[in-house]
Amino acid sequence: MVDLAHHGDAEATPGLLDLAVNVYPGQRPPWLQQALLASLDDVGRYPDAAAAEAALAVLHGRAPGEVVATAGAAEAFTLVARWRDWRRPVVVHPQFTEPHAALVAAGHAVTAVVQAPPFRLDVSAVPDDADLVVLGNPTNPTGVLHPAAAVRALVRPGRVVVVDEAFMDTVQDEPESLAARGLPGVVVVRSLTKQWSIPGVRAGYLVAGEAEAAQLRALRVPWSVSTAAVAAMRACSTPEAAAESERRAEQVARWRAHLHRGLSHLGVEHLTSVTSFVLARPGAGVHARLREAGVAARRCDTFPGLDDSWVRIAVRPPDVTDSLLDALSTALAMP
Amino acid sequence: MVDLAHHGDAEATPGLLDLAVNVYPGQRPPWLQQALLASLDDVGRYPDAAAAEAALAVLHGRAPGEVVATAGAAEAFTLVARWRDWRRPVVVHPQFTEPHAALVAAGHAVTAVVQAPPFRLDVSAVPDDADLVVLGNPTNPTGVLHPAAAVRALVRPGRVVVVDEAFMDTVQDEPESLAARGLPGVVVVRSLTKQWSIPGVRAGYLVAGEAEAAQLRALRVPWSVSTAAVAAMRACSTPEAAAESERRAEQVARWRAHLHRGLSHLGVEHLTSVTSFVLARPGAGVHARLREAGVAARRCDTFPGLDDSWVRIAVRPPDVTDSLLDALSTALAMP
Repeated sequence: MVDLAHHGDAEATPGLLDLAVNVYPGQRPPWLQQALLASLDDVGRYPDAAAAEAALAVLHGRAPGEVVATAGAAEAFTLVARWRDWRRPVVVHPQFTEPHAALVAAGHAVTAVVQAPPFRLDVSAVPDDADLVVLGNPTNPTGVLHPAAAVRALVRPGRVVVVDEAFMDTVQDEPESLAARGLPGVVVVRSLTKQWSIPGVRAGYLVAGEAEAAQLRALRVPWSVSTAAVAAMRACSTPEAAAESERRAEQVARWRAHLHRGLSHLGVEHLTSVTSFVLARPGAGVHARLREAGVAARRCDTFPGLDDSWVRIAVRPPDVTDSLLDALSTALAMP
Repeated sequence: MVDLAHHGDAEATPGLLDLAVNVYPGQRPPWLQQALLASLDDVGRYPDAAAAEAALAVLHGRAPGEVVATAGAAEAFTLVARWRDWRRPVVVHPQFTEPHAALVAAGHAVTAVVQAPPFRLDVSAVPDDADLVVLGNPTNPTGVLHPAAAVRALVRPGRVVVVDEAFMDTVQDEPESLAARGLPGVVVVRSLTKQWSIPGVRAGYLVAGEAEAAQLRALRVPWSVSTAAVAAMRACSTPEAAAESERRAEQVARWRAHLHRGLSHLGVEHLTSVTSFVLARPGAGVHARLREAGVAARRCDTFPGLDDSWVRIAVRPPDVTDSLLDALSTALAMP
């Protein structure tokens, strides 16, 4: 069994060039920094997640009752895992392993549906009797964006489809997001971590129908969403934030194109990504050789459906990407 | 059934004088404010709870592996609730209701052992077959401090005793704390919320044997302890912090004596408290009349074993206490 609890942050050892953690590498916007600073004046009071939920609801055009703020997407996955006595929960792999781990921790027997390259969603591979289906969109670590229609094709009576959209805000225009659509049986999980570079704040949320959201909210650890997280959620839900999010998505697209070109130039097999990381297949041993050269990429042998021939590479500004490409070139030339 | 999910923060309506929320009413120490400020520089990285656990271990003279940092004591209670398939979990009431609520949410049938005034721990009232016993020390809302020996008398093979010490740092010298003692079968829950006035940061932890701590840590929501919480835990574990904690406990003792005297002067039945709140019994209707007079005390009809004749009053500086006593005097004079 692979270690589903392994995450990229454990690979970003101090001293290594970090291409393992997929957070936006730039400065926080001044309005977000200001909101976090100002939130320190409020930590003497218990936090009020409802204020964050109201703001996020406006962002997505949903009702406040349809949003559940969480301590990062990680808490959202534990809520889903503990929500019902799932008969046949299915996780579509390769993908972020926390939803699977949370289901196991909650005592469920998980069916892994493992997709093959190029990792496009095969709806027919999901068992008919699945009452829970979890998938990522865009998917971590593949970088594949599934069409909203394909995700919707998974919906059926008696089934909940959970779409992990933790990276959706890194996708230009978010064409396949389901966050703004109130589809029965669909729970969308989002995160502020990646686009806003705030993994330390623990700010995520889920969007669902009002009845489902109320049930999930009732399972939340009391006050799990901190005052700083509430402040971040409010600050990142404004029209100004939406414009900056789109600007960042465009910038990441340019940086990503540079990485794609570099990988092609080196002849490294890779998938075309829509998000802030690229899944590449330079071959077994390259991950370790990159580390020896001072570069941390994300190992992929801990993702069901992948193995140690793959690495996930964070999208970074061109100069950082060039350092990665140099190290990769050297690693590939080793016997 | 009483509403176990009711908490004092819901009563501290803006505009009311807040004697419902039991956090220290003074300024944060400058070193804590500085640590929280500095932590904003680190929120671009995933938080590292182990750093907090190492600091807290030094504070209590325990091994780092014996401490589990949590997003407030509230998360600690959910970890305990989901830890084992408890056969007969017992909660000693009246006490903070979250541990009971967390056990119910995790699907357990809870046995409530309800103590009568003056709420001293009656070890013989706990069923012999209880495999989990949860109690508070000092107990919220009674303000009673149980002798460590009485708590230890609850320990037996096959049983876990969980001591909620969320208010222990408000007790001068902490004579009855079990946090520094590695007793098999005892899990101590602590919080930074009350003494350091940081409910919005969500900083708590539990202390247990190394094997038990490892099991509980594995159940924690990934990265649930934010960067700010880690910074607060480190800052509040220094010798300087310990000295300030003791200074605050002494100050609260002086303020509490003023409240005790005032209640006695008004002839209001109350318990002698060792912590930052006092449980009083001014009679039914007084809670509502205080609210009408602009004063929020904590209602007590949501605590099993109490009813609407009781109120819990936060210890505040003498001028604030005097306002409460004035309002209380008026409320008592009403027909």
